[in-house]
Amino acid sequence: MKFATLTTGHPDGRLLLVSRDLKTAVDAGAIAPTLLAALEQWDRVKAPLEQLYEALNAGRAQASFAFTPQRCGAPLPRAPQWLDASAFLNHGRLMEQAFNTTPIPDFDTIPVMYQGASDDLLGPHVDIALPSEADGIDFEGEFGVVVGAVPLGATPQEALDAVRLVVQINDWSLRALGPREMRTGFGFLQAKPSTSFAPVAVTPDELGGAWREGRVHLALEVQHNGKRFGEPHGREMQFSFGQLVAHAARSRRLSAGTIVGSGTVSNVDRAAGSACIAERRVIEIIDAGFASTPFMKFGDRVRMQARDDDGADGPFGVIDQRVVQSAHAG
Amino acid sequence: MKFATLTTGHPDGRLLLVSRDLKTAVDAGAIAPTLLAALEQWDRVKAPLEQLYEALNAGRAQASFAFTPQRCGAPLPRAPQWLDASAFLNHGRLMEQAFNTTPIPDFDTIPVMYQGASDDLLGPHVDIALPSEADGIDFEGEFGVVVGAVPLGATPQEALDAVRLVVQINDWSLRALGPREMRTGFGFLQAKPSTSFAPVAVTPDELGGAWREGRVHLALEVQHNGKRFGEPHGREMQFSFGQLVAHAARSRRLSAGTIVGSGTVSNVDRAAGSACIAERRVIEIIDAGFASTPFMKFGDRVRMQARDDDGADGPFGVIDQRVVQSAHAG
Repeated sequence: MKFATLTTGHPDGRLLLVSRDLKTAVDAGAIAPTLLAALEQWDRVKAPLEQLYEALNAGRAQASFAFTPQRCGAPLPRAPQWLDASAFLNHGRLMEQAFNTTPIPDFDTIPVMYQGASDDLLGPHVDIALPSEADGIDFEGEFGVVVGAVPLGATPQEALDAVRLVVQINDWSLRALGPREMRTGFGFLQAKPSTSFAPVAVTPDELGGAWREGRVHLALEVQHNGKRFGEPHGREMQFSFGQLVAHAARSRRLSAGTIVGSGTVSNVDRAAGSACIAERRVIEIIDAGFASTPFMKFGDRVRMQARDDDGADGPFGVIDQRVVQSAHAG
Repeated sequence: MKFATLTTGHPDGRLLLVSRDLKTAVDAGAIAPTLLAALEQWDRVKAPLEQLYEALNAGRAQASFAFTPQRCGAPLPRAPQWLDASAFLNHGRLMEQAFNTTPIPDFDTIPVMYQGASDDLLGPHVDIALPSEADGIDFEGEFGVVVGAVPLGATPQEALDAVRLVVQINDWSLRALGPREMRTGFGFLQAKPSTSFAPVAVTPDELGGAWREGRVHLALEVQHNGKRFGEPHGREMQFSFGQLVAHAARSRRLSAGTIVGSGTVSNVDRAAGSACIAERRVIEIIDAGFASTPFMKFGDRVRMQARDDDGADGPFGVIDQRVVQSAHAG
């Protein structure tokens, strides 16, 4: 199934089912008013949602309408937890050089993960309002999963079985603030503004063979101001999403609707380009001695879309956002 | 006003008003069903809540009943964000020695703060279930504030004006996991299980003169297994809660109901004792060359209660919890 969330007066929006080709949608609010409500009662609502989804794809759903991602927020505008890993070793190793931080211990055997704010997750086409260009505004293209309830101490297999949805993420980052926050040991906070999401969250079966070994086997095509930035592939994750979710549940339970991210998608093959500016900049420094790609300016745009190995559009729709200056900035 | 949350079938519980002497309570759900709902509509519900609170204190409230903290959860069982600082420099400096980590840069001029899970906040008398004694189970006595909506870029004064409630916190910590997570730079995650709260959240005016300079001027009395552990005083916070909240809102907005904690209360005067075991252990190491106080065992209890400068009971009620082994542990 494919889900989206219509932006309404309610902070959690309204649940839509979206057709497999992303062309039509239907209000699913009579089955579950919001995606979070659906995840909280998954066993009860799954069958009726599947029925409606089948009708929608067959052109038989009553009151279906053209799917307009611009009217949608994040699939989960508010989530119980948002936990983001850094599971692409190539990215992590490059970022250590970019930030000039000491190598992360056991980086290849124990996942690293920060807890982000989950009360204000942004839709695919809203402007992101930030206080200052001097903060080093950057995007980060990622994949992620949304789980059902996960008990404390779940195994990686149990955690993988709890994956309900797969999502595509832009984890906005302020690079001038990150290194200092890392050195405090308390982790990212000011360096991580509200995270943004592609409009469509999909059940793993929608990925077909691109969902295997707990990883998303799709490329993530990234464009900055209309120019190609990279299309790194999801297959190189060091840890499966099952391992990441189990890591998060080591000493706490996870509520249904918790989102766990992969960290910036990144490949050893430099021909794949990058899914964030900071990574490209450190490659420039390594290759040329200095960084030539600036961070984002107000008015800049970033576009992200998954693609399968044949180049076809991925299942999540498109993130296409503009950076603007926040009104309240001092 | 003083609020508590009755544990019900609903994850956010049911809003109670509690009398000033903590002896009686009344269901306030007709005004706002939950404390979170009250915070989201504060301007609308404040006056009717104040009216009911006045009637309760005068013994005139209909259907009032004896206040039973054992039937209550955290004032906010789920919050939009839970952000915990480390604003007592004495504690932070000692913890650097305990963890053998490098000194936090600008620790006395820029707040440090981690983002914790806010989807499963525990009540004052429930058992805390954890997987292993080998994780170094510890309590941390803290004060905190709950804010209304705070815009991105709020000043410390604007942030202080947004404080709606003051709370008392036990920030459970797993000390064997903390140093490694600090060294990753991504911050605490496995090291921070579900946080616990005293039953009563109070508006700042309830503190009288004990709420000044954006700080809680009360001692926090801590007992471990019935024995005195310490009673450090809240006045030595390096940063005001206004400064802490403004720090959190530097690059994100905070939703109404966001909780910001002080970090472990700690005083330079060692006669005050400690509000966590790790701090006492590092003092033992400094004084005697080795730590003699073990971390908590399954079955251990911790009790925390604020006290004013005359030794009278504080306004938040009591945290009294037992550590047990989690069922799902491997």
